[in-house]
Amino acid sequence: MSRPFNFSAGPAVLPEEVLAQAASEMLDWHASGMSVMEMSHRGREFISIYEAAEADLRELLQVPPEFRILFMQGGGLGENAIVPMNLARTGKVDVAVTGSWSRKSAAEARRYADVQIAAEGFLPVSQWRLRPDADYVHVCTNETIDGIEFHELPRVLTAPLVIDCSSHVLSRPIDWSRVGCAFAGAQKNIGPAGLTLVFVREDLLDRALPICPSAFNYKTVAESASMFNTPPTYAIYIAGLVFQWLKNFRHAGKTGLAAIEQRNRDKAALLYTALDASGLYENRVASECRSRMNVPFYLRDERLNDAFLAGARQAGLLQLKGHKSVGGMRASIYNAMPLEGVQALVSYLKDFEARHG
Amino acid sequence: MSRPFNFSAGPAVLPEEVLAQAASEMLDWHASGMSVMEMSHRGREFISIYEAAEADLRELLQVPPEFRILFMQGGGLGENAIVPMNLARTGKVDVAVTGSWSRKSAAEARRYADVQIAAEGFLPVSQWRLRPDADYVHVCTNETIDGIEFHELPRVLTAPLVIDCSSHVLSRPIDWSRVGCAFAGAQKNIGPAGLTLVFVREDLLDRALPICPSAFNYKTVAESASMFNTPPTYAIYIAGLVFQWLKNFRHAGKTGLAAIEQRNRDKAALLYTALDASGLYENRVASECRSRMNVPFYLRDERLNDAFLAGARQAGLLQLKGHKSVGGMRASIYNAMPLEGVQALVSYLKDFEARHG
Repeated sequence: MSRPFNFSAGPAVLPEEVLAQAASEMLDWHASGMSVMEMSHRGREFISIYEAAEADLRELLQVPPEFRILFMQGGGLGENAIVPMNLARTGKVDVAVTGSWSRKSAAEARRYADVQIAAEGFLPVSQWRLRPDADYVHVCTNETIDGIEFHELPRVLTAPLVIDCSSHVLSRPIDWSRVGCAFAGAQKNIGPAGLTLVFVREDLLDRALPICPSAFNYKTVAESASMFNTPPTYAIYIAGLVFQWLKNFRHAGKTGLAAIEQRNRDKAALLYTALDASGLYENRVASECRSRMNVPFYLRDERLNDAFLAGARQAGLLQLKGHKSVGGMRASIYNAMPLEGVQALVSYLKDFEARHG
Repeated sequence: MSRPFNFSAGPAVLPEEVLAQAASEMLDWHASGMSVMEMSHRGREFISIYEAAEADLRELLQVPPEFRILFMQGGGLGENAIVPMNLARTGKVDVAVTGSWSRKSAAEARRYADVQIAAEGFLPVSQWRLRPDADYVHVCTNETIDGIEFHELPRVLTAPLVIDCSSHVLSRPIDWSRVGCAFAGAQKNIGPAGLTLVFVREDLLDRALPICPSAFNYKTVAESASMFNTPPTYAIYIAGLVFQWLKNFRHAGKTGLAAIEQRNRDKAALLYTALDASGLYENRVASECRSRMNVPFYLRDERLNDAFLAGARQAGLLQLKGHKSVGGMRASIYNAMPLEGVQALVSYLKDFEARHG
């Protein structure tokens, strides 16, 4: 083990191969004489990087041709305003609140629309309160703080579904037949903070409010191939390297997204099984909506928290402290976390429990 | 000469030392076991990077304590909307139009305010049409496309002055006594695209329109020390390395910002003198407002353009093509462009003229 295992919820671990390639190309990308950071976004070198990244992403997630892919700025919290400014044409938005992130999305959308809470908690879509004339329905498909994930996208028939998939994008396929718009901050499963991916169906491109800034207007961005504003070029380059890494990823006889999904299942099963078998730790999420990406857990004796974190750090297991709003611990086990990282964590969990349980 | 000279208008050349350090720290920053890209923005490692960057920037530009420095996303075009959403409380904005960028700013501000064009062209401030009840007066202090620079900030008494200083920030001091708010996209003189610096006087922090997104609300961002949203962490790290490079920069017996300003003067003088002495090339900007950063020029015989650019590339002089909206050539000679780069360009200009003039 050359590097410690980094369980940060985001910005988060990246594949070591990607970092090594970025380091080796830092002063001179492909004999261009330039770092990618120094390239004009309109030059042929960067355009080739951009086009390869977009094509690889489209292939990985099987994005249908009627969806445009936008490389934007602003992150998930930015999109909480950018989505209603682009889509809330008649001013009605339904939001399913399943945790901290969707609650924030609902609050921000109230600046621009009448917001109805469709559900509080993880309920079947048949029980949601949905309006037939809403502009869209918002769902956070993986709640990073609460450790809750939709394992099947809700089938919403009343209005286009908007999904915030920031913290599990590219960890599994997306059923595009159920989605109108999807967005994802890059800093969990894709690459550096400061890049936001937006996937938007073409028929939703022309619904922006007049107050929507040009730089954040989906139609403007789509028509300029994400070059209306100078895009976050270096972050796009790193994301492109991650996409190439994913395309070549192999696990359990599978390749690409299917392989990473299988490894994510294996990692999550290993960790949840260890937590459930323990007398010291507990995960409090219902089994049908446990996230494969973010695993919050508590020590039943919280006085042991500091000793747990100090020992973890010594064992090369970093950033396990839970979000300040919920306390406890959290292991984020994104795509780039190796199986060996989860094995090391499970081994530490057992060892710590044997000493302190 | 190990690397070619890159005259891109942005994203643009960075100091080779900065790139080399970033490459060497890519997999493990200061024995943390993490790349800077992988660090939680709330962890002690990144907080230390952030605080050093802010302190160095404040020192370099002598930013008074009553100004807050915000590290944001969205770029200059984003700020064209973000500024009025934060400051156009009563809906009146005056804009001095000196070129392409200020014209875009005026157009975007019209989404949020009644915009009055204070001037068309580079006029003394005494001739501007200013309203005593405007919320602010907008100026682009360096027009990247047109090659026009304010060498003294206008003394505006009617309302707070907002300056878009994207393309010459940190190339010279800023007279803060004349400024209420300043912003700068990072991709010219600071670092990677995707980071935007905002300097805002504290008394202007509480004027946002209700439609201003939280992620772009100066007060929200200031109160959370730029951590409301996940900030573009890696870009901030690179910017911090550039700030350290600037603090240690020496030229002509000077250090820091004074040294880089002197070298910028020297570089610009060398290039403008060569252009003015030539029969083949011409710069069309009045001498009192010629930019030290962006030097557009034309070949009097435009049929030679392609040969000029091909020869430049062969001579290791990259990205000299002018902006598509104005044609011709443009040499951007930002802080990180060495004197040797401008010397090599002048030598090529003379050589090409001798062969084709």
